[in-house]
Amino acid sequence: MQQGFTLWLTGLPCSGKTVIADLVATELKKRGLKVERLDGDIVRKSLTKDLGFSKEDRYKNIERVTFVAKLLTRNGVIVIASFVSPYNEVREMSRREIGNFVLVYVKCSLEECIKRDSKGMYKKAIAGEISNFTGISDPFEEPINPEIIVETDKESPNESKNNVIRKLEKLGYLE
Amino acid sequence: MQQGFTLWLTGLPCSGKTVIADLVATELKKRGLKVERLDGDIVRKSLTKDLGFSKEDRYKNIERVTFVAKLLTRNGVIVIASFVSPYNEVREMSRREIGNFVLVYVKCSLEECIKRDSKGMYKKAIAGEISNFTGISDPFEEPINPEIIVETDKESPNESKNNVIRKLEKLGYLE
Repeated sequence: MQQGFTLWLTGLPCSGKTVIADLVATELKKRGLKVERLDGDIVRKSLTKDLGFSKEDRYKNIERVTFVAKLLTRNGVIVIASFVSPYNEVREMSRREIGNFVLVYVKCSLEECIKRDSKGMYKKAIAGEISNFTGISDPFEEPINPEIIVETDKESPNESKNNVIRKLEKLGYLE
Repeated sequence: MQQGFTLWLTGLPCSGKTVIADLVATELKKRGLKVERLDGDIVRKSLTKDLGFSKEDRYKNIERVTFVAKLLTRNGVIVIASFVSPYNEVREMSRREIGNFVLVYVKCSLEECIKRDSKGMYKKAIAGEISNFTGISDPFEEPINPEIIVETDKESPNESKNNVIRKLEKLGYLE
């Protein structure tokens, strides 16, 4: 039976979490593995649709996602979760709860993220039109001991994906 | 690979949902199957701890549980969910979302449930000390087409458990 684990991608908005998470998920599915993707777009439809972006709501958001990831992981599913998840304390809560937990820091300079700004959110945050925006009006705490760091302002998405896969093999989570 | 499905037990408070759900779970685990139990005590610790018992909150509660059950079910896990879940519309939402869904109506007369009253909740509800209590101050809609009915005021818990197992075999969910 395949071993379940949770691959957790953290990083600033527009740092490239979704792109890399999707590439890794596609690669693992090709290998015949059971994979579930969890991200804001997926969970905000049902699981967390009552939540905003205050510190308290961010905690609740990750707490609920963690519950789902824990149950899937212990039943042999690979969960690929991509969330800004800006606080060390909250990421470490997820790690403790889930057990088989691999943290990926999707590193990208704030300048580059602002340049990308795929949904125009940085623009609004800088103009003060939205509050609690990570990187502008809310902090992002760099992970202290991530298992993997990918630098999306220096590597192509495919290079980042390959780095993640290689590291998962090295850690013994993949054959 | 084992087939995932969700066994959903609905019924009045103190009708015996938890007892039967636990007996079925134990039996399936003995057979080497992957099983997850979901009930109020489990999910209210994290997933739904902000929710009360208004109609709206009951809907949200079942909506979040359904999200979890759907993901587990489609990954080959057997989910055994026991919730009062008093509304037909909400149970049918779960059925639509989850797909492999088997509804068990845990039937027990209100009189017998009040007599059991294991947590003293009926007493408080009748005294008006708690509101929105199903059976007293909130409705319970009998399921229209449940796959299984167990009558816990007429059968022993073991008989009910055996009836559930036999029916799951007949439906092709178990060998």
